[in-house]
Amino acid sequence: MIRRYLYHQLAPEGWHTHGLSPMNKLVCVLILAASFIAIVETEPTIRDAYPLTFGGLEAFFVAVFSIEYLARLYAAGEDPRYSGIVGRVRYVFTWWALVDLIAILPFFLGFIAHNNAFLLRLFRILRLLRLSRLGRFSRAWAALAEALTARVHELVISIGVAGLLLLFSAACLYAVEAAHQPEAFGSVLRALWWSIATLTTVGYGDVTPITALGKLFAGITAVAGIGIIAMPTGILAAAFSDAFQNNDNDKKQGE
Amino acid sequence: MIRRYLYHQLAPEGWHTHGLSPMNKLVCVLILAASFIAIVETEPTIRDAYPLTFGGLEAFFVAVFSIEYLARLYAAGEDPRYSGIVGRVRYVFTWWALVDLIAILPFFLGFIAHNNAFLLRLFRILRLLRLSRLGRFSRAWAALAEALTARVHELVISIGVAGLLLLFSAACLYAVEAAHQPEAFGSVLRALWWSIATLTTVGYGDVTPITALGKLFAGITAVAGIGIIAMPTGILAAAFSDAFQNNDNDKKQGE
Amino acid sequence: MIRRYLYHQLAPEGWHTHGLSPMNKLVCVLILAASFIAIVETEPTIRDAYPLTFGGLEAFFVAVFSIEYLARLYAAGEDPRYSGIVGRVRYVFTWWALVDLIAILPFFLGFIAHNNAFLLRLFRILRLLRLSRLGRFSRAWAALAEALTARVHELVISIGVAGLLLLFSAACLYAVEAAHQPEAFGSVLRALWWSIATLTTVGYGDVTPITALGKLFAGITAVAGIGIIAMPTGILAAAFSDAFQNNDNDKKQGE
Amino acid sequence: MIRRYLYHQLAPEGWHTHGLSPMNKLVCVLILAASFIAIVETEPTIRDAYPLTFGGLEAFFVAVFSIEYLARLYAAGEDPRYSGIVGRVRYVFTWWALVDLIAILPFFLGFIAHNNAFLLRLFRILRLLRLSRLGRFSRAWAALAEALTARVHELVISIGVAGLLLLFSAACLYAVEAAHQPEAFGSVLRALWWSIATLTTVGYGDVTPITALGKLFAGITAVAGIGIIAMPTGILAAAFSDAFQNNDNDKKQGE
Repeated sequence: MIRRYLYHQLAPEGWHTHGLSPMNKLVCVLILAASFIAIVETEPTIRDAYPLTFGGLEAFFVAVFSIEYLARLYAAGEDPRYSGIVGRVRYVFTWWALVDLIAILPFFLGFIAHNNAFLLRLFRILRLLRLSRLGRFSRAWAALAEALTARVHELVISIGVAGLLLLFSAACLYAVEAAHQPEAFGSVLRALWWSIATLTTVGYGDVTPITALGKLFAGITAVAGIGIIAMPTGILAAAFSDAFQNNDNDKKQGE
Repeated sequence: MIRRYLYHQLAPEGWHTHGLSPMNKLVCVLILAASFIAIVETEPTIRDAYPLTFGGLEAFFVAVFSIEYLARLYAAGEDPRYSGIVGRVRYVFTWWALVDLIAILPFFLGFIAHNNAFLLRLFRILRLLRLSRLGRFSRAWAALAEALTARVHELVISIGVAGLLLLFSAACLYAVEAAHQPEAFGSVLRALWWSIATLTTVGYGDVTPITALGKLFAGITAVAGIGIIAMPTGILAAAFSDAFQNNDNDKKQGE
Repeated sequence: MIRRYLYHQLAPEGWHTHGLSPMNKLVCVLILAASFIAIVETEPTIRDAYPLTFGGLEAFFVAVFSIEYLARLYAAGEDPRYSGIVGRVRYVFTWWALVDLIAILPFFLGFIAHNNAFLLRLFRILRLLRLSRLGRFSRAWAALAEALTARVHELVISIGVAGLLLLFSAACLYAVEAAHQPEAFGSVLRALWWSIATLTTVGYGDVTPITALGKLFAGITAVAGIGIIAMPTGILAAAFSDAFQNNDNDKKQGE
Repeated sequence: MIRRYLYHQLAPEGWHTHGLSPMNKLVCVLILAASFIAIVETEPTIRDAYPLTFGGLEAFFVAVFSIEYLARLYAAGEDPRYSGIVGRVRYVFTWWALVDLIAILPFFLGFIAHNNAFLLRLFRILRLLRLSRLGRFSRAWAALAEALTARVHELVISIGVAGLLLLFSAACLYAVEAAHQPEAFGSVLRALWWSIATLTTVGYGDVTPITALGKLFAGITAVAGIGIIAMPTGILAAAFSDAFQNNDNDKKQGE
């Protein structure tokens, strides 16, 4: 009885009306709240001002998500594929169940990393992976994957052309500027940083050519290359846009 | 008799020919002039060179706009909805009447703020809100709102995707660069400033990764992310463009 | 006899075959050469290395263009509109004849400016106006003007929206940052420099917000505004593109 | 017998099934590996850590590519055009045979440059030209050339317009800023570096106008010019995109 109720509330495929069940809506809100807290907590001035609050909030969210995980595991038995102990083990290794597990794990692993600043930071941002749990509730992924597949050949060639252009301009600047700025242009790999910053038009200005020949090459590649570098991202954006519109159409037809 | 004349001159719906009445054209010119003066006045070198001029001009504009406000209030009686005292009160709380009031208020509130530099600056730029009064004379708003509504779903998803990308790249750089540049990358919130500057391709260069791993992550997100970040603004621009063209078509059909 | 020959050679409308007459082709080459010399001459290291060459070359080009001007004036008599002394005076005040005159004038005015560095620089770059003489030989101008006229309403509204956005973000940053960076954000006019550099995504980085609130506003306007600022230039580029294609079509139909 | 086998394996036109022969696939992998090694070798910290490895690897790749070159020369005899000694000489001077030769040459020329750092760097990046050998195996070139030819007129005019705009804004800034920043704006040629960095929106920030008039001109050209500068690269990207799609269609029809 309770299991049947939980199944209807928790499994997206168990809820027959349009939209999300009240319990899943609450889960979404909790995920967003936990992610927001995780972001704010990284700021040391805020963390040090309320040292206990963030530890308490994190423990609370992990407790709630652990209970939710167990409830989902229990409710999964309603689905014939996942009933029985063998079925439950099969459920634990489904994609979204693993994602749910990863959302709780960093808390327990956090104790291991207690003295390592880098691992601590890593576990802190791993909490943001919880945001990916929202994906469970969206049907947009299939549409996105389809749109990307339809353009995969175009995407690969344009990434290849863009990569060659990045390499080519990095190699030119390396040949010309290496003697004057060994730190910034001392190898093709180092010059690639300049190359990416320039051809994406980000242009930080931390690294710029200083010789006349370097400026000439840089000017030519900047003018000629911008449209070429924008091609893969343009194709990617078009694929996203297609996916949204297909999804919209599907929804309209489904209503 | 005067009220009827004022109504025809002041209310856009009271003027039956195409375009604006002479009195409303004058009001538009005065709004533009007052805004121009308000912008120039913020420059201290100019303000200090002519200390009395700007005070006098502002008093003049406020006087004119106050008279205009009272004239509109008086003329509103021609409209059956706003006749009588109850009708006038109703008129005062219409959207555009409130906007008109806000255009005069900062002058009178300015006396309160006389010793607070921040409030003074705030009241100075609040005068620029007068520019929004020009909106009263344009029929483009309805078209713009319609065009945005038609794309609201697309807009929300693309803002979501762009936001996740910003967060993701900020989190990566925080994990990698925090130890070397605590001031700029010491938290995900701080790293977001770098993230926005990079993915919009603004690239101020006040904050850049310095470790090899940070440059690698930054390069990948720059190349992959630019098209994605441009999506919401692209949709916004397309909605604006649709609104202009619909508005143009309406005008042509109306002529 | 000579006048008729000169008319056929010099006046674009006097040459009946497709393309340009040999003499006009030579004039085009001379204009490009003179402009190239004028650009190179501004570089002091080159100018000082060959002090006499550039003066001589400039005198040569002015002599040739003066002879060309007189030849055009003489040949114009073949056209019934410009025959006789009254007709010649009328010719002198046609658009392209004035442009031709401006191409020679800076040389003679140069003697006046001999001791003023700014005027000297101004006359030096005025020589580049000779490039506009090339426009005489192209029929693309009419197509371009037509394409711009067709989109003038769209262009005006989008420039207005872009201008309001620039003002709005400059006013926000002025309110927030003026106290901390009076040099860069001390007035709305000064903040406009930051505003333009950011919203066009140029992002020099000479002026950036340093307060948390300033960075918040800057981030929001950067993300929201980029697509809007690109609208007028996008419309302009589309008008150019239309003009090229119409011109191409006209040529193909004319052949 | 061996010659016939080599011909089928090495010449793309000798392999009748779809795709590449096993031997050519191996050649592709070797080219990519050799290019990767060539890029990594330019980094002095890596090169100095394994001084012998890179010399050995390079010798190995040159040996393999030399054997491959001789094998191709030998196998070319299967083609009636290149049989006999005269045919072989004709083969050596075909486009792709010359490209193959250039891929081996830098190694042998490297001995000449042993004491010249610039020539050493040049020969190191010349190895990257090996990547162009991959072009032999792709049929995309013809499609790309066709797409560019179809838009050549549009491309030339838009490059002309973009060039004039770059010159014009450089000349303005030279006139206004030369007195204050002779190093950066002391000639039109020097100002072009600023001009390119600004109008492509790269905006390094190493050179920015500092006078009010200079900022005014820079702001106007930035707002007005961005769409215009992006036109040639936009046309270039559209031509690339056309070429990809035509190539895709050809492949689909060919299957």
